[in-house]
Amino acid sequence: MNIVLLNANQDCSSDIWSIEDQRQIKHLNQHLQLKAGDTLKVGVRDGQRYLTEVQSITAQQIMLRPIQAENVPNKVPVHLILALPRPKVLRRMIMDAVTLGVERISLIHSYRVDKSYWQSPFLQQLDDYVTLGLEQAGDTIVPEIQLYKRFKPFVEDVLPTLITEQRPAYVAHPYAEQSMPHAIAHGCNLIVGPEGGFIPYEIDLLKKNGCQAMSLGNRILRTETAVSNILGRLFV
Amino acid sequence: MNIVLLNANQDCSSDIWSIEDQRQIKHLNQHLQLKAGDTLKVGVRDGQRYLTEVQSITAQQIMLRPIQAENVPNKVPVHLILALPRPKVLRRMIMDAVTLGVERISLIHSYRVDKSYWQSPFLQQLDDYVTLGLEQAGDTIVPEIQLYKRFKPFVEDVLPTLITEQRPAYVAHPYAEQSMPHAIAHGCNLIVGPEGGFIPYEIDLLKKNGCQAMSLGNRILRTETAVSNILGRLFV
Repeated sequence: MNIVLLNANQDCSSDIWSIEDQRQIKHLNQHLQLKAGDTLKVGVRDGQRYLTEVQSITAQQIMLRPIQAENVPNKVPVHLILALPRPKVLRRMIMDAVTLGVERISLIHSYRVDKSYWQSPFLQQLDDYVTLGLEQAGDTIVPEIQLYKRFKPFVEDVLPTLITEQRPAYVAHPYAEQSMPHAIAHGCNLIVGPEGGFIPYEIDLLKKNGCQAMSLGNRILRTETAVSNILGRLFV
Repeated sequence: MNIVLLNANQDCSSDIWSIEDQRQIKHLNQHLQLKAGDTLKVGVRDGQRYLTEVQSITAQQIMLRPIQAENVPNKVPVHLILALPRPKVLRRMIMDAVTLGVERISLIHSYRVDKSYWQSPFLQQLDDYVTLGLEQAGDTIVPEIQLYKRFKPFVEDVLPTLITEQRPAYVAHPYAEQSMPHAIAHGCNLIVGPEGGFIPYEIDLLKKNGCQAMSLGNRILRTETAVSNILGRLFV
């Protein structure tokens, strides 16, 4: 937690703000040994970031006085399109994608995505994972997240509307001949398949609808490792 | 698991090989629905990689016939120096570092590493994490792993012997002025601190001993996300 994210309904014109979320208070008390007079970075969900001074601390509430506004980090111009991960991995993947600063996330179906994943209660907690990712990054802006439970309609009807010359679509694919580009000066749609990869039919359909299949070399990465690795390579 | 890693004592001159490890057999039976006649990629620990043909399958043993040798992916020329992660994170970090192909790993102490982490039973399982990482990557070559339980002696006595013109040392540090380089044509020592980062004294000592502090931009990444991200950026 590198900033504390306050609800969007925080009254920013007020002189004194308060943290009342129990998860946040517990974290601050356990890990930061915060005391009155300390400074604390906070952000307002979908708003500004501030340096604040701690006024008082109890187990129920931390009172803050805003000192000055701070810059919110820029997003990276990526729409990340992920085959829905296993529920266990979903939290880390969403959190990391948000920390890494992607503008938008779409979760899609694929042959190797178990249909039961779409019923996972973890899908109800996406918003919590987003909060954790923003708090890690020091960001405040919530990326848009959309779910597409059918692969073919997404690829045929939605994907082509996202692709432009300045926003190509790359699908990471171990057997592609071209290498994933690096240090690009434009945005992109980045598509990462499930564990085990997209099946050949899916790769073909993606290509037919404007995607470029790009290899990451001859090591096969876990999907969550791949996302961070590719973003490090694309945007330097 | 993209290859099955066999013990180094596998007799490669034999016509028929066998998989007897219960973890591997369970994985192959559950996830691959393997049957006689299928091909299977295997690697010999610290040796060659092969395409094999499955001869027979039981719950205790899978018999294989090697068909042809395959290339083992090259390592990336990196000595990764990590502040010892929380036991819960250690498995994924070692596994991912190995999957990403680092040549060598050193785990070091740091002010924000809880001393109890050095007593964790997970440290006895490093070799298992290495196996998982190699099986994910399709690699066979075990990287060297060393532990340094004292920060200062490591930085003052060991680190300077690792640094050369062609092997600089970069420490990822959010507040550095220079940016982490990208697409480098040489090797490096890459130092990644604990959650919460190195303390100023540690950054100073690292710099005094030849390290260059490099920023990753104004987003603060989890350590495991940072390693994959930096390696994607350094080697394209």
